[in-house]
Amino acid sequence: MDQKKALQIVKPHLTEHRYTHTVGVMNTAIELAERFQADKKKAELAAIFHDYAKFRDKQEMCALVESSIEDKTILGYGDELLHAPCGAYYVEHEVGIKDEEVLNAIRYHTTGRPNMTLLEKVIFLADYIEPGRQFKGVDEVRKLSETNLDEAVIQALDNTVSFLMKRRQLVYPETIATYNELVVKQKKEK
Amino acid sequence: MDQKKALQIVKPHLTEHRYTHTVGVMNTAIELAERFQADKKKAELAAIFHDYAKFRDKQEMCALVESSIEDKTILGYGDELLHAPCGAYYVEHEVGIKDEEVLNAIRYHTTGRPNMTLLEKVIFLADYIEPGRQFKGVDEVRKLSETNLDEAVIQALDNTVSFLMKRRQLVYPETIATYNELVVKQKKEK
Repeated sequence: MDQKKALQIVKPHLTEHRYTHTVGVMNTAIELAERFQADKKKAELAAIFHDYAKFRDKQEMCALVESSIEDKTILGYGDELLHAPCGAYYVEHEVGIKDEEVLNAIRYHTTGRPNMTLLEKVIFLADYIEPGRQFKGVDEVRKLSETNLDEAVIQALDNTVSFLMKRRQLVYPETIATYNELVVKQKKEK
Repeated sequence: MDQKKALQIVKPHLTEHRYTHTVGVMNTAIELAERFQADKKKAELAAIFHDYAKFRDKQEMCALVESSIEDKTILGYGDELLHAPCGAYYVEHEVGIKDEEVLNAIRYHTTGRPNMTLLEKVIFLADYIEPGRQFKGVDEVRKLSETNLDEAVIQALDNTVSFLMKRRQLVYPETIATYNELVVKQKKEK
């Protein structure tokens, strides 16, 4: 699917603000894919559709997880996480994208998961650092993403967990598992 | 066992600095137990023995976990965590303390666990805030511990996870599970 067509499909599902964010994620994902030798077309596609389910009805998504998504753990950790796995499902069944790498990049773009693929890291990070993002710590992650993809992901996870805990929000266990796996990997590589 | 006898038993196992810390934890644990209606004698005993295994040989403790401790997860998360579950084992088998509440307070004093008992929270917190402790964030936890035991534990967990992640150290999954359980509990109580 070409960029124009993909953007046309996703646009009606998003607010203007979220569409601008999506374009930012797309451009950043392409850049990161180039920098770290990921598949640029897959990065573009996953980025365009990463927030496809952002504004879906929460109850509908809970029901979808109950009926059609194997891992139901996510249901205990707040509505904000639903749009990623549900998005992957809708993108597959409504848009017809069958590429598992692209779908997994959408599926894990919010929580991460241990042993993320290169493409998954690119989308996770692009979502965090696209130019529209302005929050504490984002510049440090931007800087790291110029040279070290794993270290950038680790820093983004650190910031995210810290953000959640300061606000007394739940921390998804797989996000900590992602961090732990990357820290062990980094230590082995040193 | 009276305080004097217990301190006599633990002293040879600790450095001078760690013994002073232990006395600080003991006094703080008694205070907290009084404030939140926990068992003062059990708090005293658990506090005195909480670091009993702090200076045991790490290989010996790994072997002990392999042979005699049911949950072996801890082995993947760094040596610093070993002294708590191993300490509970040694205190039971060498000192002869059989009280499961006291042993669990020793066992979980570093990591926490979901659904901690009142005594476990008292020891976890006393270890964090005793007067000898001087690190970023400790005063905020001290202040919270004057009125709200759970909120103080949550803040200590927040500080600890943040500290570990900043240093790229592993985060024990049960520590996050402890935080999540307490946050859900706090929300229900509000």
